Amino acid sequence: MLTEAQRQDLQQRFGERLSLSASVREAHGRDESFYPPAPPDAVLMAETEAEVLAAVAWCHRERVPLIPFGAGTSLEGHVLAVHGGLCLDLTRMDAILRIDAADLTVTVQPGVTREQLNAQLRDQGLFFPIDPGANATLGGMAGTRASGTNAVRYGTMRENVLMLRAVLPPGQVLRCGSRARKSSAGYDLARLLVGSEGTLGVITELTLKLHPLPEQVAAASVQFPSIAAAVQACITVIQSGIPIARCELIDANAVRAVNAADHLGLPESPMLLLEFHGSPLGVREQVERVQALAAEQGGTRFDWAATPEARSRLWQARHRAYWSAIQTRPGCRCLTTDVCVPISRLAECVDQTLAEAEAEGLPYFVVGHVGDGNFHVGFLIVDAAEREQAQALSDRMVQRALRLDGSCSGEHGIGLHKQAYLLQEAGEPALAAMRAIKAALDPHGVMNPGKVFAAS
Amino acid sequence: MLTEAQRQDLQQRFGERLSLSASVREAHGRDESFYPPAPPDAVLMAETEAEVLAAVAWCHRERVPLIPFGAGTSLEGHVLAVHGGLCLDLTRMDAILRIDAADLTVTVQPGVTREQLNAQLRDQGLFFPIDPGANATLGGMAGTRASGTNAVRYGTMRENVLMLRAVLPPGQVLRCGSRARKSSAGYDLARLLVGSEGTLGVITELTLKLHPLPEQVAAASVQFPSIAAAVQACITVIQSGIPIARCELIDANAVRAVNAADHLGLPESPMLLLEFHGSPLGVREQVERVQALAAEQGGTRFDWAATPEARSRLWQARHRAYWSAIQTRPGCRCLTTDVCVPISRLAECVDQTLAEAEAEGLPYFVVGHVGDGNFHVGFLIVDAAEREQAQALSDRMVQRALRLDGSCSGEHGIGLHKQAYLLQEAGEPALAAMRAIKAALDPHGVMNPGKVFAAS
Repeated sequence: MLTEAQRQDLQQRFGERLSLSASVREAHGRDESFYPPAPPDAVLMAETEAEVLAAVAWCHRERVPLIPFGAGTSLEGHVLAVHGGLCLDLTRMDAILRIDAADLTVTVQPGVTREQLNAQLRDQGLFFPIDPGANATLGGMAGTRASGTNAVRYGTMRENVLMLRAVLPPGQVLRCGSRARKSSAGYDLARLLVGSEGTLGVITELTLKLHPLPEQVAAASVQFPSIAAAVQACITVIQSGIPIARCELIDANAVRAVNAADHLGLPESPMLLLEFHGSPLGVREQVERVQALAAEQGGTRFDWAATPEARSRLWQARHRAYWSAIQTRPGCRCLTTDVCVPISRLAECVDQTLAEAEAEGLPYFVVGHVGDGNFHVGFLIVDAAEREQAQALSDRMVQRALRLDGSCSGEHGIGLHKQAYLLQEAGEPALAAMRAIKAALDPHGVMNPGKVFAAS
Repeated sequence: MLTEAQRQDLQQRFGERLSLSASVREAHGRDESFYPPAPPDAVLMAETEAEVLAAVAWCHRERVPLIPFGAGTSLEGHVLAVHGGLCLDLTRMDAILRIDAADLTVTVQPGVTREQLNAQLRDQGLFFPIDPGANATLGGMAGTRASGTNAVRYGTMRENVLMLRAVLPPGQVLRCGSRARKSSAGYDLARLLVGSEGTLGVITELTLKLHPLPEQVAAASVQFPSIAAAVQACITVIQSGIPIARCELIDANAVRAVNAADHLGLPESPMLLLEFHGSPLGVREQVERVQALAAEQGGTRFDWAATPEARSRLWQARHRAYWSAIQTRPGCRCLTTDVCVPISRLAECVDQTLAEAEAEGLPYFVVGHVGDGNFHVGFLIVDAAEREQAQALSDRMVQRALRLDGSCSGEHGIGLHKQAYLLQEAGEPALAAMRAIKAALDPHGVMNPGKVFAAS
């Protein structure tokens, strides 16, 4: 809780950009996770790096928690003010500062969203591939090391951040990385900040890799007799080194949901949604090989999305799976899971997970970036008992992923939810190293406390 | 200097695996840099992680420097024992522990060399692409965030380490990352250790990404009327998004040197050496597009290396450029430079650098991973005066790269040589953060002290 003196001090410093109203605080105390809201004591709408610097320095001096906030689309409770404090809303820092088309780089402020960026890039024949579904801010995506549907070809935020600026306690601006494509200059601080979930500093500028818009894009849906067959087809595609741009699984439940929501009339069976990028010849060749591999697993009915509009519809169906599924059960919330395993273990991991889900009888759907070995089961729950059931299933799913050499979090991060799993996955020495780094860079523990690991 | 008691204690613990002989110490006090040797006080041939753990714990307790040692091919003085101490030779830890062909991953001990690994993988239709030229150990390559000729397509050690184990002070084994292709589980400690040059811990195990051997490989040399034209051709290839596997520049001086050494009879003009990976159709298409782009810049005489043997000869010429150049001037040493700039600034950076080199009249040659914006000028020097000249040229080259938004080190690391440049590139706050991390993880400062930054 802020003291009265602290509140007045903040108001004096930041004027009308600071909000203490219940509605604004409430709106900044929630995300897309299943946690009850935890509003901050105050919200600052930052407009410049200098203001971020002032806020970080103030919080460090006053020992007040500071929580960076973007689009609020986290699924793991990242932005909840569990220890109160000041929420730093960065959405007004939304300038695209510099597009270097010749170098395939762009420099943005952290509040720029991926859709905003791609709208701006389109005319230049470029795009930024990382697509977690939600129209998240790039600062938030860097903070959680986000990835999504295109990662199988283009990598995650880890591979696509060249350079960043961040404000760290006690109040200094760090510059990490360079616009050069590679560098061996010192510790990789940019990679340390990417995925640190706001617990070390506030990102104020990002320089990202861009890619030329592919000459040819083709997308298709393919149906399979079972999820296992769809997953197996994906595995063979990856193992044969085909540079597929997207390879997404959606199960029959998810297809039913998007059909109901958007009248898409898709056949209600497990599907892979595929996208191919390349030259016309290259795409044709990839398509032929993938068709053959899919057919071997019983894949049928390649439905081609030939036009950009048809392609948009296809991916909209994928992206709307989450929302559409929630609409199928009035009053429900979705408990979303996120594990990633080596590709050879994917079929086993999905199979066993779904057998357990079926046995429990809880409504669920599956979507997955299966080309990376990453998948999500969403459980649609309406009360505390079901939540407990879903949690138990989620827990067994994580345990299974860890047994299969995988990770407890493919792309959603640790946040509040997965701290015990992180300890299990990484082990005590790695956790101790993370805590030591945290203590060295944020000695008063004010940066998004309680996330990744509990305050020590 | 070790005390007599410490020497005896080490001998008791490690028996004949510890060497105090002058010749062994001498051999472990040098690398490929131009620094005079700085031998350690003792050398331990480690054979197990348990021994590494014992050595790190001992050095931490006794406040004795510990220097990890692999193939000794560093170009920046990384393995020199500038503060004395114990050299930990890891070359006997050279087991390939596990090849997971279905997942395209391999787990190795740090002393495995890249040639050893690729020899082992070939039968399985797989390869590990990172190729810095020297037959370095994979532990050393991870430590310096190495890259080389294939990085333009396959990335650097940063992108290709999935998981590692490392021993850190006071004496604990850290596990970072997982075999899953991606993960958002906590701070990216693997990326922090990759490129930390042994100053945080000793890598004892690496899990690396593998790639299927391409169905088709084609390689060619192309001649250009000038270096500027060759660089410009490379820039247009990269900007057009062609997934070229190698795009290497060698200048006429380097060609002359390899011709003299190996009687290759290559035309003595600036050249790009190119390699294409893909399907037969895909390779043909890439080749056609690159030929057209090269021709626009005056590129002539595509000499195709059609057979694997011809290809080996071509790349051997590239890899032997350094040694061949040294042979052209009896008694010389080579002062090698290494900068990386955004691709659009590459022509300018190379042009101005070579104009200065010509003006100085010092013998030099140029090789470059120009597809990444990375190039090296090697100065062949015989005495202190020339070394000073070369240092001044190297300094101006780094200053130029930094002015052009680039990095002072593309792939060789910081070591002893580039500490002032690192400060200039990253700035005081980033350096302070690196030092804080170092102090948090290595509180007694025993891990490879004096590298990356001076002991604080």
